Amino acid sequence: MNKFMEAAVDEAKKGLAEGGIPIGAVLVKDGKIISRGHNRRAQDGDPLAHAEIVCMRNAGRLSSFKGTEIYCTLMPCYLCSGAIVTFGVSKCVVGERRNYKGDVKFLTDRGTKFIDLDSALCHEMMSGWIAKNPGLWQEDSGKRYSV
Amino acid sequence: MNKFMEAAVDEAKKGLAEGGIPIGAVLVKDGKIISRGHNRRAQDGDPLAHAEIVCMRNAGRLSSFKGTEIYCTLMPCYLCSGAIVTFGVSKCVVGERRNYKGDVKFLTDRGTKFIDLDSALCHEMMSGWIAKNPGLWQEDSGKRYSV
Repeated sequence: MNKFMEAAVDEAKKGLAEGGIPIGAVLVKDGKIISRGHNRRAQDGDPLAHAEIVCMRNAGRLSSFKGTEIYCTLMPCYLCSGAIVTFGVSKCVVGERRNYKGDVKFLTDRGTKFIDLDSALCHEMMSGWIAKNPGLWQEDSGKRYSV
Repeated sequence: MNKFMEAAVDEAKKGLAEGGIPIGAVLVKDGKIISRGHNRRAQDGDPLAHAEIVCMRNAGRLSSFKGTEIYCTLMPCYLCSGAIVTFGVSKCVVGERRNYKGDVKFLTDRGTKFIDLDSALCHEMMSGWIAKNPGLWQEDSGKRYSV
């Protein structure tokens, strides 16, 4: 697997170990990981603490996100896609989008390159967790606007 | 002025008093304010701490945002509009959008009602601050994707 996606999966696993939703993300610039994050809804009681948001927040007050690439274990929702296009993240690579379709066109129409690795590992990690935790998943994703 | 927008302006003024960007928001449910927030980019070194994000975060882990209304002193960017549609906030009322055009159709196409109060007070508060703080404004808004 791509080494950056591996790091995003590691983040997802950290979230899982904390009793949270296993979704992870890393932000890459010039071939190096500059920040990491995982979903913290359950841990922090914060419905907006999606992996991508936490990851970008952890990058701090960058003067520009131009040239950065975000690796996410799952397709981002509009909150996270909105963050990606608002701050001009150049590329979004997802582990899978079978468990959450999202809106690829929203990203690409606004200049963010998009790659779906369609990783069996990412897909199974998420599917397996959803099957065991339908309530928490529904709470986090049920109101997500998915096209 | 609408009492909820007044409360959002009060939040913006709190941010200003802290040396931050004067943008405020409140979330309303059943005619009552259930959370408040203001932009905290400068205060927290967090570029994602937009007023609407902070306000929705402060609402906590609601089972549903259905029926809530968000009052924002300035038109939301895609990060905040993404949060609004992802969590199903029913209505978005803005103080003005002359200083930031945003994307009204993005919200209304996804079921969020939209009202622009086009308030002179909100407009002048933002314009006056931008004129004095072009660098910080550019840092916060320059990379914002505005259609």
